[in-house]
Amino acid sequence: MPAEFALIERYFSALGTLRTDVAIGVGDDGAVLLPPPGQDLIAVVDTLVAGVHFPPDSAPRSVGHRALAVNLSDIAAMGGSPAWSLLAITLPTVDEVWLEEFAAGFGALARASGVQLVGGDTTSGPMSVTVQVLGFVPAGLRLLRSGGRPGDLLFVSGTPGDAACGLTLEQGKLQTPSSQAERILRDRFLFPTPRVALGEGLGGLASACIDVSDGLYADVAKLAMRSDCAAHLELTRLPCSPQLAQCVDAAEARRFTLTGGDDYELCFTVPPSRSAQLDQLAHAVGVSCTQIGCLTAGSGVTVTEQGTVIEFSHSGYEHFGG
Amino acid sequence: MPAEFALIERYFSALGTLRTDVAIGVGDDGAVLLPPPGQDLIAVVDTLVAGVHFPPDSAPRSVGHRALAVNLSDIAAMGGSPAWSLLAITLPTVDEVWLEEFAAGFGALARASGVQLVGGDTTSGPMSVTVQVLGFVPAGLRLLRSGGRPGDLLFVSGTPGDAACGLTLEQGKLQTPSSQAERILRDRFLFPTPRVALGEGLGGLASACIDVSDGLYADVAKLAMRSDCAAHLELTRLPCSPQLAQCVDAAEARRFTLTGGDDYELCFTVPPSRSAQLDQLAHAVGVSCTQIGCLTAGSGVTVTEQGTVIEFSHSGYEHFGG
Repeated sequence: MPAEFALIERYFSALGTLRTDVAIGVGDDGAVLLPPPGQDLIAVVDTLVAGVHFPPDSAPRSVGHRALAVNLSDIAAMGGSPAWSLLAITLPTVDEVWLEEFAAGFGALARASGVQLVGGDTTSGPMSVTVQVLGFVPAGLRLLRSGGRPGDLLFVSGTPGDAACGLTLEQGKLQTPSSQAERILRDRFLFPTPRVALGEGLGGLASACIDVSDGLYADVAKLAMRSDCAAHLELTRLPCSPQLAQCVDAAEARRFTLTGGDDYELCFTVPPSRSAQLDQLAHAVGVSCTQIGCLTAGSGVTVTEQGTVIEFSHSGYEHFGG
Repeated sequence: MPAEFALIERYFSALGTLRTDVAIGVGDDGAVLLPPPGQDLIAVVDTLVAGVHFPPDSAPRSVGHRALAVNLSDIAAMGGSPAWSLLAITLPTVDEVWLEEFAAGFGALARASGVQLVGGDTTSGPMSVTVQVLGFVPAGLRLLRSGGRPGDLLFVSGTPGDAACGLTLEQGKLQTPSSQAERILRDRFLFPTPRVALGEGLGGLASACIDVSDGLYADVAKLAMRSDCAAHLELTRLPCSPQLAQCVDAAEARRFTLTGGDDYELCFTVPPSRSAQLDQLAHAVGVSCTQIGCLTAGSGVTVTEQGTVIEFSHSGYEHFGG
């Protein structure tokens, strides 16, 4: 690699929590890690490409945060606890200010999540960031997309749609009179909160789970298909943040909620007998979980408004520029 | 992601060996893996960027092979046995012929190495490939760069320099009358053989190890620095393949051997008392290992020719275009 890229390594030599189950971290040909006995290992990977997953002029602190967050969200969707991360970063030039901010964003979320950066690779080329996260789940308790059964209740955490609206604001394609609402929505895109504690609690409680990265409707469709069920979504049950309601009218808010991507909320199914247990969990972790529908026998996604079937054809969200 | 990218997934849904320690592979939010008890986990990651690590018009079968090989080489350098892999691939367009060939190259090496592809991510953007490999090493037996001691003998596997000469041939910057030598050298660049079985055997035998990716001289310097030793390299001991000797004169061959990159051989140190054991291992795994020098107290790398110190200033190799 070009010599100046060696400089980069100092930004990434000690990010996140210092964990006792890391025998060898950054700096050798590979990391040596000590998996805990009695746990299964979860492995996820996600790439963010400049101009596809984030605007090329995005705040680097946000890019660092999101590169880790999207992976933590996948770990959460599997019911896992994140532990270790590897970072492969490709940059056209070495910009120390950019790197410092990127590392700050990545590092803050890593510390908050108990994750240690244990290895990586730095290369020159068009900007992209690939992060791998490894985590654990008690043996056999992993959550899959495929575990839903007819009769299960369908839930979503938080208020999906905020991030897509935030990106639209970020791009200057939407105006809002409330600067406070604008700031909150932009931050929902720039600094999404992966639902790690919720995911950990859903193991052994939820029957199926997926994270909402491509839009609620599209991700519900994936969960239903993999569970070999039909999904019913009731529009009047969809959660909507006060900020989203302040920025756009009700129809537009609904469009953001159903088709907007990049929220990194969890969408999951729970047998009715366990819904009280879910209430307790949601309260304990401080994350709102809204029942938005249910699974039935059959296939596909049916959208209703107060019980009346609505035509809904938008199948998903395509990332910024993608 | 753009809808057509979903097509890609079928190329990557079942690559490599089908392992019994994979509970959930490709297709959910993450993979669920069952680490064996009594083993430490090794995690490595490497990115190949088109135009930096390989010519943009490289044969896709070679790109698939190399993307996995460079990571298997890192696992080998840690003394580990590879098991699981994740693949993050970024492509400007969906070219099914390219993808099929890439998958064939990746898959063949994965099968030969006992590795299963368990997850990944496909994104649109400038072409690059990031691969993570996870492997195991018996608890405490991992090899590091830092374990070398004064008096240890310095070895290298195979015949480094071949890959860099092969790339030069591939780029049309060099002519050779021997089409057979040319083919062999090009293949050493296009389809390097990671020294996995050798690395597995070196655990508990070698004192330090690094894989030769940036050039022998540069990688010896890293090993010596991390081991807090000086390294002595004796030029007359350097191995040279008959093909390299056929293509270039002795001085040029030496330059390739010392500074050429992308060989993915192992460079390692062994206490003199264990050199007979190394001979047995090299014979058992069918890989030549040549003693090229030794470690002493001090720092830096000294190059000698029949004992006379030679000035040598080239500090390393910069990848194609990098």
